[in-house]
Amino acid sequence: MADLTPLLAFRWSPRSFDPTAALTEDEATSLLEAARWAPSAGNAQPWRFALGHREDGTWKRILVGLPSGDQRWARHAAALLLGAHTGGDPERAAYDLGQAVAHLTVQATALGLHVHQLTRFDRAGVATELDLAVGVRPMVVVAVGQLGDPFALPEDLLGREAELRRRRPLADLLLA
Amino acid sequence: MADLTPLLAFRWSPRSFDPTAALTEDEATSLLEAARWAPSAGNAQPWRFALGHREDGTWKRILVGLPSGDQRWARHAAALLLGAHTGGDPERAAYDLGQAVAHLTVQATALGLHVHQLTRFDRAGVATELDLAVGVRPMVVVAVGQLGDPFALPEDLLGREAELRRRRPLADLLLA
Repeated sequence: MADLTPLLAFRWSPRSFDPTAALTEDEATSLLEAARWAPSAGNAQPWRFALGHREDGTWKRILVGLPSGDQRWARHAAALLLGAHTGGDPERAAYDLGQAVAHLTVQATALGLHVHQLTRFDRAGVATELDLAVGVRPMVVVAVGQLGDPFALPEDLLGREAELRRRRPLADLLLA
Repeated sequence: MADLTPLLAFRWSPRSFDPTAALTEDEATSLLEAARWAPSAGNAQPWRFALGHREDGTWKRILVGLPSGDQRWARHAAALLLGAHTGGDPERAAYDLGQAVAHLTVQATALGLHVHQLTRFDRAGVATELDLAVGVRPMVVVAVGQLGDPFALPEDLLGREAELRRRRPLADLLLA
């Protein structure tokens, strides 16, 4: 890997979260502020969030929308954050939401927290559970918390946790 | 603003770029590596890039697609990077591209560079100019370079350069 700033180089998406750690009020505010100050087309800021702390009502409504395999580990994260967009042009709004969540992730890393994003979940179900307005489109569930003991994971998840991070070669990304 | 990591807190999107500064090979590689290691759904990495250095052929092909008002300042940036996605699901792919460009932006900040994204441009025209494959969808032009002298900007742009950064209140972003 080329020289990357530590906040990017040390970022990864774990499945092992500390089930005893909470997300503090200051941490939650800091994460949301990072998202809030992301850039967006025409400064439209089409991102919206629902934050559930472990075991609270919002958390339960988000958790039940996740695939059962992911619930096994995501339930241990300190918080589950739903990311949605309000875009008239869904593609542009999703682009901006992606930036906001990336900024949130960088801030989480700066706070010593870890983030694992989930994009496969019951979007319509979560929208209903959280009573979202028409036009607010859930796109991602962000599990955030302190890193936990990977050996507490079920064996199949431990195997995935130990996999090397891989990406396409840089040359494959270049158009011109 | 709450306590944000400096790489986020000090990020902004200038119009004043130093017209004499070049993007070095190491800087270019570092920016693209940051994008490359971003997370994506199923690790699909649907992002693609075309990098033009000031005055080269790719740069010219990207520049002509920008609105003339933006060309006035964007032409001074050291490089223009086209960001595109290859997504079967455009909304998800755009989300992932947004994350990759955000990571690139954080890395640019770490290198002392500045970034200004443009999403209003002639996407079809740029795709033709760069002979992009069908299914590769341009979404953003990223101007990147060293900060320049704002007083070298035309008066109308200087006024915009001096505007305060503004965002909606945090409470407006919260769904639950």
